[in-house]
Amino acid sequence: MLTSSGNAGIPATIRSWAMPSVFRHTSPGYHELVCAPHRPSCAPHHRMKEQYMHTVEQMLDTYPKDLGGIDRAKLTECIQACFECAQTCTACADACLSEDKVADLTQCIRANLDCADICTTTGSALSRHTGYDANVTRALLEACATACTSCGDSCEQHASMHEHCRICAEACRRCERACRELISSLT
Amino acid sequence: MLTSSGNAGIPATIRSWAMPSVFRHTSPGYHELVCAPHRPSCAPHHRMKEQYMHTVEQMLDTYPKDLGGIDRAKLTECIQACFECAQTCTACADACLSEDKVADLTQCIRANLDCADICTTTGSALSRHTGYDANVTRALLEACATACTSCGDSCEQHASMHEHCRICAEACRRCERACRELISSLT
Amino acid sequence: MLTSSGNAGIPATIRSWAMPSVFRHTSPGYHELVCAPHRPSCAPHHRMKEQYMHTVEQMLDTYPKDLGGIDRAKLTECIQACFECAQTCTACADACLSEDKVADLTQCIRANLDCADICTTTGSALSRHTGYDANVTRALLEACATACTSCGDSCEQHASMHEHCRICAEACRRCERACRELISSLT
Amino acid sequence: MLTSSGNAGIPATIRSWAMPSVFRHTSPGYHELVCAPHRPSCAPHHRMKEQYMHTVEQMLDTYPKDLGGIDRAKLTECIQACFECAQTCTACADACLSEDKVADLTQCIRANLDCADICTTTGSALSRHTGYDANVTRALLEACATACTSCGDSCEQHASMHEHCRICAEACRRCERACRELISSLT
Repeated sequence: MLTSSGNAGIPATIRSWAMPSVFRHTSPGYHELVCAPHRPSCAPHHRMKEQYMHTVEQMLDTYPKDLGGIDRAKLTECIQACFECAQTCTACADACLSEDKVADLTQCIRANLDCADICTTTGSALSRHTGYDANVTRALLEACATACTSCGDSCEQHASMHEHCRICAEACRRCERACRELISSLT
Repeated sequence: MLTSSGNAGIPATIRSWAMPSVFRHTSPGYHELVCAPHRPSCAPHHRMKEQYMHTVEQMLDTYPKDLGGIDRAKLTECIQACFECAQTCTACADACLSEDKVADLTQCIRANLDCADICTTTGSALSRHTGYDANVTRALLEACATACTSCGDSCEQHASMHEHCRICAEACRRCERACRELISSLT
Repeated sequence: MLTSSGNAGIPATIRSWAMPSVFRHTSPGYHELVCAPHRPSCAPHHRMKEQYMHTVEQMLDTYPKDLGGIDRAKLTECIQACFECAQTCTACADACLSEDKVADLTQCIRANLDCADICTTTGSALSRHTGYDANVTRALLEACATACTSCGDSCEQHASMHEHCRICAEACRRCERACRELISSLT
Repeated sequence: MLTSSGNAGIPATIRSWAMPSVFRHTSPGYHELVCAPHRPSCAPHHRMKEQYMHTVEQMLDTYPKDLGGIDRAKLTECIQACFECAQTCTACADACLSEDKVADLTQCIRANLDCADICTTTGSALSRHTGYDANVTRALLEACATACTSCGDSCEQHASMHEHCRICAEACRRCERACRELISSLT
């Protein structure tokens, strides 16, 4: 049940360094903890699997009640994209602020600030499953996709001049896509 | 290890697909994509370097001004740990809320809510480098480490009963450690 | 233009001390500052007007560029309602958490947490005017009104039993109303 | 003195107008304003109790468990000051962004962004009482006071030139003071 679909067929040696450290279990003794005596049945493939799991997926897997009919893969992707976009937009607003031509980037900075706030709020709301309200989720995802479109467009205009705007535009596009795919999967 | 100059010699066309999101690593067939036939020149050291890169690091690398004397590796680790912990604590508060014995978990839920807010604020402040203020950074990191200690302790008490609390406790410990290591590196 | 509707018909002398403490200028010498030498034209009506202004209104009044065609009174009302609702929902979630029958209030708690996050994000976005994007503003206001409706409905169900839910439901209704009125005023 | 039961026997129509926004104040004399001649039917006993209450105070009054030894007046003041400062700093960052000399205000903008995030987080944490942790509260209040000092200093430098910076500096000073007074009252 705890499978990380993405890694199927990739040699462990490659997977090990290919995991994003943001989710990699770097804590010393994690291995030992996972395979502690009270879990004698802990098999190598189990260890491996658990090591490659993201905390986002782990939290979905350990939610005590039914997640409902939601598409787990799309939900995971969207939560991750929201938090990535929030961090990237916050950093892009600050990078724009330090550009010599900051006066030409004020609209981009404002779009970044709104997008960061909306993505954090959306990623947090999507991390909650208790008392799910489809109307709130849909309206929030729509607002998030709209903010990502606006911010992605602003950043794209400066992508050729400012590398941080190019990277941020890509994060906004990924988040916008993830939101729209989750919306379309909502029943 | 990961310097902005790392991108210097890579053609934009390659850089465009070579910019993996923090999360793309695990998408189905990512490895196959990166090493697709249309990229025969894909050299191991390139693959490795590229796949280790996160948007967090990319944003640090593309910040237009000097980052100052800050330890870039510790800063990257701390920003990632803060956002991971924020998402995990938000999800853990919700998972606790859906446990049959929620009445026994109210203190844990409150600790999760505070920790999530503080980690988001700390991760955001650490993503800004313009007009750096060491006093604010230090005080915020202290508050974040304190919140992670408190939340980690609360979750640890339920770790054996609730898997989401075990996972959250680990995220809190990672974030606490990352905050303390960054504090000790601040000049 | 800068009158607080609630004060209509109340003598200025009364209004002067009747200002909300959150916004009242309590700093010593405020008067002197306002009427500093570099502002010789400072007339009584000017002082009075400035004294009655809230910081929300003051910030709107001191924004250096044009605010555009937005309804300033509705905008002020909505910003204040969003921050009030965010604080109230955060407190209500915590109060529900301390009720003996917390198990019956988990859906209400979740609605409170989402509503608090969305209201904070909406109040913040509405506090920005640079690079205004009507699409983002409208989508965010729709999401906020939807969250307030959902949370207000949840709290209302417990209003007769839990006073904090009754108070929170009213704050949600005020915020929902303020959002819808601002939406309808957007050109 | 302020008990939730105080509202019990009051008709909804009266309760509705008696529901003050979080921004209405409680300074001495407010009661006389409220009980002005145009409100003859207003019963002193109810008038006084209800109209002195803010939603912030109402939420404190209706919290089902003991609030502990915390100074309620200082707590109320601090929660209000935090949310006021968060809104003002968000608006000041945006106003600075629209100044022609934005390039001279980048440090002020960054200080505003950090201060807004920290104040929102502090105001939210102070709105929670379940599972109170003095260490987290103290560390967070210290971080908030530090951020307010830093932002207040930055804004003060531009107070004579930019009215929004003068107003924001005052909000930062109020919040810093409220945080320090609450810290000193913590046992």
